[in-house]
Amino acid sequence: MTSTVLIGGSAPEHESQAATVADRAFQYGDGVFETLRIANGSVRFLESHLQRLANGCERLRIPAPDASTLRDEIERVAGATRDAVVKVIVSRGPGGRGYRAPEQPTPTRVVALYPLPAPDSGPLALRWCDTRVARQPILAGLKHLNRLEQVLAQSEWSDAGIQEGLMLDTEGELIGGTSSNVFVVRDGVLVTPDLRYCGVRGVMRKQVIDCARTLGVPVSEEPLWPEDLPGAKEVFVTNAVRGIRPVATLAELAWSDHTLARRLSAELRL
Amino acid sequence: MTSTVLIGGSAPEHESQAATVADRAFQYGDGVFETLRIANGSVRFLESHLQRLANGCERLRIPAPDASTLRDEIERVAGATRDAVVKVIVSRGPGGRGYRAPEQPTPTRVVALYPLPAPDSGPLALRWCDTRVARQPILAGLKHLNRLEQVLAQSEWSDAGIQEGLMLDTEGELIGGTSSNVFVVRDGVLVTPDLRYCGVRGVMRKQVIDCARTLGVPVSEEPLWPEDLPGAKEVFVTNAVRGIRPVATLAELAWSDHTLARRLSAELRL
Repeated sequence: MTSTVLIGGSAPEHESQAATVADRAFQYGDGVFETLRIANGSVRFLESHLQRLANGCERLRIPAPDASTLRDEIERVAGATRDAVVKVIVSRGPGGRGYRAPEQPTPTRVVALYPLPAPDSGPLALRWCDTRVARQPILAGLKHLNRLEQVLAQSEWSDAGIQEGLMLDTEGELIGGTSSNVFVVRDGVLVTPDLRYCGVRGVMRKQVIDCARTLGVPVSEEPLWPEDLPGAKEVFVTNAVRGIRPVATLAELAWSDHTLARRLSAELRL
Repeated sequence: MTSTVLIGGSAPEHESQAATVADRAFQYGDGVFETLRIANGSVRFLESHLQRLANGCERLRIPAPDASTLRDEIERVAGATRDAVVKVIVSRGPGGRGYRAPEQPTPTRVVALYPLPAPDSGPLALRWCDTRVARQPILAGLKHLNRLEQVLAQSEWSDAGIQEGLMLDTEGELIGGTSSNVFVVRDGVLVTPDLRYCGVRGVMRKQVIDCARTLGVPVSEEPLWPEDLPGAKEVFVTNAVRGIRPVATLAELAWSDHTLARRLSAELRL
């Protein structure tokens, strides 16, 4: 049987669905997720995604699903699809007394296939979001299911001519896009926010950092502020689904140099 | 047909459940909830709960369910139950492109009945939690579904002799219990954190504030810090399910005066 959604490895039926509103993902956002890109029939950076998912589960003390089970389920939903998005959600599952996690959780695993979003027609137009990201070190870096900040940020604009919004944290530091990490080329150094207080450490972010270093480009993870943008030679945003996306404009700022973004994209075969 | 869970007004069946892992509550914690107490066959402070739910929906720009529909569904799950807990969840429903909310959301409504937790055997023993609450003014006060902080905080202890943990925000201000608001009697004034940056404005918190003022007790909503606790004459925590709970100990601190907690409980007929 083929299905584009697997819940605990099974195509949804009455039994397997009955638990879902009692699931701690539904009740508290108590879980983590990954969004993976299938390109030319294979999953990009699969091992990095599985590694981050395992790390996220460990930090939240959710028993991580077996990596080979996940590999198998991702293959099953993908089938013969050449280009698509796969989303994996792992929650702590049902149960517990209120917020308190059950001592022996039975995690829920959802693997689902989605079509690719429409491709970019060229370098991006960005805006600043009013919605800030709260500083929460215990969740910093994690791709967890508490995403109201990003939902509210993306609801700030409807202009299809704007493809992404940049978010600051509540102290005014630059964190990244609503669903992307941000990179800035400044004085020959590739700089990206260090995300020590908040933000998601993207799988593509890691690929870009590693690849740039391999190419001999110095990379710095450090605090960035909106004031750092006007002096940047080049700006791009990254995520696992859309790869490396050069930025053409951000409010009144503009960039025409996309050299490093294109070099990294070519090197990573995106 | 009777059921202890209603989803969109129906007892769970295959059709109504099929959407739940695609629901934005499951994917992003994109919604709000209420936990109501049925005591002696009637719902306590029902109108306050419905009002807060409507306000929460408005702040998240989720179309609020009709109050009379909710009243009816709460009655239906409660049936002839004399003492129980009802949880109402309203999410933005399925759909949207990634984090972005659909322009015309179809919210999901879940109304579920739960048994009462075991009653307290006396005034509470509290601890301090290491998990901090992040400062996020746009979500402050709301009972939204992004509750990882509370989940992690309640996972800090397993000693059944400790009934609640107090949480500070990331700057060290006292916010409240993991699932309660906190009140302190100091120099004849009833003080509770103002929750301007984070925390949940509980329905019971509001009842206590209003009731104390009616009794002529001065009330102040203001920033509180751990240093304010040793000088307190009386401490209690509140929530809608358990009412007003006097605090006997907090780590090395102890209180034996529970006069105001008991007076307010009597006045509010808890």
